[in-house]
Amino acid sequence: MHNRGLLEIETTMIKVAVLGATGYTALEAIKLLLRHPEVTLVAATSRQKENTPLSSVHPSLVGRTDLLLENVAAESLGERADCIFGCLPHCASAEILPRLLATDTKVIDFSADYRLDDAETYQEWYDHDHPDKERLGSTAYGIPELFRDEIAKAQLVANPGCYASSAILPIAPLIKANCVELDDIIVDSKSGVSGAGRNPKLMTHFPECNESIVPYNVGRHRHTPEIEQIINRFTHSRPRVIFTPQLTPMDRGILSTIYLRPKQSMSEADVLSILDTFYKEEPFIRIVDHLPGTKDTAGSNFCDITVRVVGDRILLISCLDNLVKGAAGAAVQNFNVLFGLPETMGLL
Amino acid sequence: MHNRGLLEIETTMIKVAVLGATGYTALEAIKLLLRHPEVTLVAATSRQKENTPLSSVHPSLVGRTDLLLENVAAESLGERADCIFGCLPHCASAEILPRLLATDTKVIDFSADYRLDDAETYQEWYDHDHPDKERLGSTAYGIPELFRDEIAKAQLVANPGCYASSAILPIAPLIKANCVELDDIIVDSKSGVSGAGRNPKLMTHFPECNESIVPYNVGRHRHTPEIEQIINRFTHSRPRVIFTPQLTPMDRGILSTIYLRPKQSMSEADVLSILDTFYKEEPFIRIVDHLPGTKDTAGSNFCDITVRVVGDRILLISCLDNLVKGAAGAAVQNFNVLFGLPETMGLL
Amino acid sequence: MHNRGLLEIETTMIKVAVLGATGYTALEAIKLLLRHPEVTLVAATSRQKENTPLSSVHPSLVGRTDLLLENVAAESLGERADCIFGCLPHCASAEILPRLLATDTKVIDFSADYRLDDAETYQEWYDHDHPDKERLGSTAYGIPELFRDEIAKAQLVANPGCYASSAILPIAPLIKANCVELDDIIVDSKSGVSGAGRNPKLMTHFPECNESIVPYNVGRHRHTPEIEQIINRFTHSRPRVIFTPQLTPMDRGILSTIYLRPKQSMSEADVLSILDTFYKEEPFIRIVDHLPGTKDTAGSNFCDITVRVVGDRILLISCLDNLVKGAAGAAVQNFNVLFGLPETMGLL
Amino acid sequence: MHNRGLLEIETTMIKVAVLGATGYTALEAIKLLLRHPEVTLVAATSRQKENTPLSSVHPSLVGRTDLLLENVAAESLGERADCIFGCLPHCASAEILPRLLATDTKVIDFSADYRLDDAETYQEWYDHDHPDKERLGSTAYGIPELFRDEIAKAQLVANPGCYASSAILPIAPLIKANCVELDDIIVDSKSGVSGAGRNPKLMTHFPECNESIVPYNVGRHRHTPEIEQIINRFTHSRPRVIFTPQLTPMDRGILSTIYLRPKQSMSEADVLSILDTFYKEEPFIRIVDHLPGTKDTAGSNFCDITVRVVGDRILLISCLDNLVKGAAGAAVQNFNVLFGLPETMGLL
Repeated sequence: MHNRGLLEIETTMIKVAVLGATGYTALEAIKLLLRHPEVTLVAATSRQKENTPLSSVHPSLVGRTDLLLENVAAESLGERADCIFGCLPHCASAEILPRLLATDTKVIDFSADYRLDDAETYQEWYDHDHPDKERLGSTAYGIPELFRDEIAKAQLVANPGCYASSAILPIAPLIKANCVELDDIIVDSKSGVSGAGRNPKLMTHFPECNESIVPYNVGRHRHTPEIEQIINRFTHSRPRVIFTPQLTPMDRGILSTIYLRPKQSMSEADVLSILDTFYKEEPFIRIVDHLPGTKDTAGSNFCDITVRVVGDRILLISCLDNLVKGAAGAAVQNFNVLFGLPETMGLL
Repeated sequence: MHNRGLLEIETTMIKVAVLGATGYTALEAIKLLLRHPEVTLVAATSRQKENTPLSSVHPSLVGRTDLLLENVAAESLGERADCIFGCLPHCASAEILPRLLATDTKVIDFSADYRLDDAETYQEWYDHDHPDKERLGSTAYGIPELFRDEIAKAQLVANPGCYASSAILPIAPLIKANCVELDDIIVDSKSGVSGAGRNPKLMTHFPECNESIVPYNVGRHRHTPEIEQIINRFTHSRPRVIFTPQLTPMDRGILSTIYLRPKQSMSEADVLSILDTFYKEEPFIRIVDHLPGTKDTAGSNFCDITVRVVGDRILLISCLDNLVKGAAGAAVQNFNVLFGLPETMGLL
Repeated sequence: MHNRGLLEIETTMIKVAVLGATGYTALEAIKLLLRHPEVTLVAATSRQKENTPLSSVHPSLVGRTDLLLENVAAESLGERADCIFGCLPHCASAEILPRLLATDTKVIDFSADYRLDDAETYQEWYDHDHPDKERLGSTAYGIPELFRDEIAKAQLVANPGCYASSAILPIAPLIKANCVELDDIIVDSKSGVSGAGRNPKLMTHFPECNESIVPYNVGRHRHTPEIEQIINRFTHSRPRVIFTPQLTPMDRGILSTIYLRPKQSMSEADVLSILDTFYKEEPFIRIVDHLPGTKDTAGSNFCDITVRVVGDRILLISCLDNLVKGAAGAAVQNFNVLFGLPETMGLL
Repeated sequence: MHNRGLLEIETTMIKVAVLGATGYTALEAIKLLLRHPEVTLVAATSRQKENTPLSSVHPSLVGRTDLLLENVAAESLGERADCIFGCLPHCASAEILPRLLATDTKVIDFSADYRLDDAETYQEWYDHDHPDKERLGSTAYGIPELFRDEIAKAQLVANPGCYASSAILPIAPLIKANCVELDDIIVDSKSGVSGAGRNPKLMTHFPECNESIVPYNVGRHRHTPEIEQIINRFTHSRPRVIFTPQLTPMDRGILSTIYLRPKQSMSEADVLSILDTFYKEEPFIRIVDHLPGTKDTAGSNFCDITVRVVGDRILLISCLDNLVKGAAGAAVQNFNVLFGLPETMGLL
């Protein structure tokens, strides 16, 4: 981009910095933040791309921002921003965020590091000794539809996993209504490839994954304990969740097909009524009659949910955009809650 | 294609005609038949494209065949061919095939019309009074790995549904070994778009289904009774199958993720051992350790199967190409059985 | 969507109606209009889907609008709206718009009907007698970067063709600078499938066009005379444009590779300098050094342009989103010009 | 794959080894060789995957071959095989092949190392001092339709570049007929992503290149000198070729749109007649009237060519599968020529 001045930024707006700005969820967050009427993006960091224009790492941002990527100490970033969007990898995140949290700044962490309530589960699933154990159990889990009050009061919000959101949002109302068995929950999920991140690997090399759908990490994907933990919070019982992720040849979107066993026979109308009532004030949850496809939610912060009763099972079907409602959109929604703004601001 | 003579065809080979040659499964069958060393393709029919070169309907066949599409009475086709590949739509097929079957010719029917054992189930799922009821119950179901002897003796083979094959092949060994519950079978399947046929519809219009995965006909897809019927043959019990098909943005391929409940606890090694033993002589069934993707089987007649045990469930995962092992390849395999040829001829 | 009230709309905003709201460019326009801070969407019409919720034709709009599709006389629409986005097919558009234009309402016409200056050229390329000949030659061609003043004063704006925009924007500065030959212009363009509209056809059926790139209408695509006409306006000479469109397996995006012959030898820096200077105040034209891909502009109103000099040719390479800068985004930009609003409003 | 014996191989067949067997062109070659009735695949090599089953690197080969990847000296391979398919990267190839060529074995080299006639051009385009200069100028360029006699007598065949084949095949007849200008040749090509190889890179990471078409190496792609050299052989004049490659979101296929200037005005019929006559005996070149798409040739060894005359230009449009006619299929065709077999053997 040649020689174009951008408008001077307002200084009365909320200052946001993005920590680890080179990946896909960071890009999506930056696009949403640039459009947000109450936000000024003040910094974007990268350890490897220091002094590179943010727009040369993300060519779609040419003409949108003049920021250079910085490699700064987390603490100093806390002084410059009112809120940090943390887009570091798991393990790295919990190494660095404690220093930021020692300042007054609020943090929305995209990594998995603060999602689980206890260090043992973290150790079991992430094979890593958690570097900030004492904070576990007291962070807010960033699904505003379920934990709005905790989020509003939090300094640190753990932004949920994309698969976890696609499973928890449809399941939660039935769990809270105590009408499904906890030991027989099957979540069969299909995700677009951006969910695997921006680091090139053979599995996500175009000629490998294009024109193919392939399961991976069956029974051992790390979003499983998130789903189980949230169900546990509502029931104080340990559920048994079978979770099957499948890589699908599309850029973005998650479809989750969830098989539940009702405690007593229920009709589709019964289930729809529970979902409708539960989410009737929620702007981003759409309970629909038709079978939704991921494209219905692509690029938006919506989660579409429907239900079918087949034989003795309830099937919940949910769709969302893994980069938006599954990551950056949820983060902006959490940001709006944190700062007392209308929850849909910048998201419609 | 300009003025190029093709080689004269041998007259001592087996003469095959394709009835209804304008769709995708017909095209795939024609390609396989043109390559088959014992086959001469003698005719291809279409009611709407009479006298059009077959290669102008299927440009990939230019230079491969000089056949013109014909609109002929089924009977006369029976006189010209030793075997008919019937690629008519359901309902239409059972209207026309009886006249062909009155001749000596053998028929492999790609439609659903002769797959079910009784007219009531057909009426229930296809919403149509079956026009050839007396033949139901006595036709061969075209999965050679399970019904080779019946196929070898048959005049009419009902080529199985693509989803049905992807579910029956992995399930059958466990059903026969009597080690899984029959009332708790979930089949979550994902299919490429060619499975929906060649007739343009909004659902399969590129900008609608590209970059989207979408469930359809949940709990009421017509391949469900096929799966139930075959399980029933082996157990003499009525199983309960929940079947969820999902349209996936790729040309071809079916991935089925199948959730079964074992009667007694089983390890992955236990299940693999049953599958390995059951299929050890079968050239087209590959029992693998890794998680297969549809691309591993694209363009081939293989069905790849693996197993994972998660919690209290057995997960069977199968992949095949819906146009090959799910349709035209299975048909050629059945053809080889019908005519006493090596079963892999023309298929590797 | 179940029983959710939407906010009451403000009545002091600019009222916009969409005429012919069931296609892809209409959907894209509706999404932009719903986000536009000065717009109220007051009506959406369809002859065939009268009384259907707009959101059932476009499921991505569930929860965004409660509008029902209407089948109303164009005149009455003129009374209800300050501006009409006309998304009717060519020929139909010029039949209906004259009645609307008799009211005070402003019209942005997405069809080709008012793009050409004379009825003879229209007859030649569209094989149709133009029903509103007297208006031809006096309408504004809706590329604000080139015709901002005419647009600002117009009642009727002819929104340009997507391919035409992708060719005219890069070529115009060099034409105006009189530095390229007019009789040797080659435009090789590649478009996503949404450009072919929402009506299912064999050519755009997923299994036909997926995994394939295919030329069509070579040398006779109807955007050719648009490109020639605009060049002619600047030069008063008849140029010779060879235009090759190619259907590319992606939802959206146009890449145009343009081969020009300079009158005198020019370096890349020379050409970049002309482009930079020409577009330096334009917020939606990004002159870049790198080779842009269509994804850089997907979902945005940007047009990215770069240049390479190879041998004795100048290669201009442009990218835009055919549904945004190539249609609905350009329309909103024209709308902003028509109503004296900041040109980027609702578009960043 | 569990415990399945494969058939004993015949020892009277032609023994072929694949040198560097882990990439896409090697896989495609192996599939063709396994199907070839006169070939036994005796070895496949890899420096990094020694002792790994070939089928674990290429899961589509499970059940097709029991070969283990070997890391052997080239010389020893020459003793075990009658023909080597060399699939090493450029530069590496010319380091290793001389030792093989010292044995009696024939070699078909997929790399670029022996395609150019002189070391200076190689140095200029590949930025590398050629390690085997004396052999340059005497190798056979592996397009049998043009150089069948040279190939038949060669020990070493340089298999052509995929883009080069897609350009040379349509252009050659017009060049030989001396009816087009040599200083005004534009080749605008679009390739599927497999052409970029199997090594994961950001450019070919699915979420980067999916849903995007992007030019690369404009004016400096290394297949340019191949095209120029072959034209030069026919004309003894240096042509000027502008070559623009574009990465297209599909697995395989190249579409080349070629703009030529006739010396004298020619009709489409004139050009078609030249092409028809030139290729009338060639089984793999299909001169067609319709506009072909890459899917017409996917998975086959065909090259489809048509012509349009637009304004003062001849447009040649060619399609082929970059992995088959653009690489492995051409190699097998060359193999058939080398060993005196029917040229279509194993390729239809």
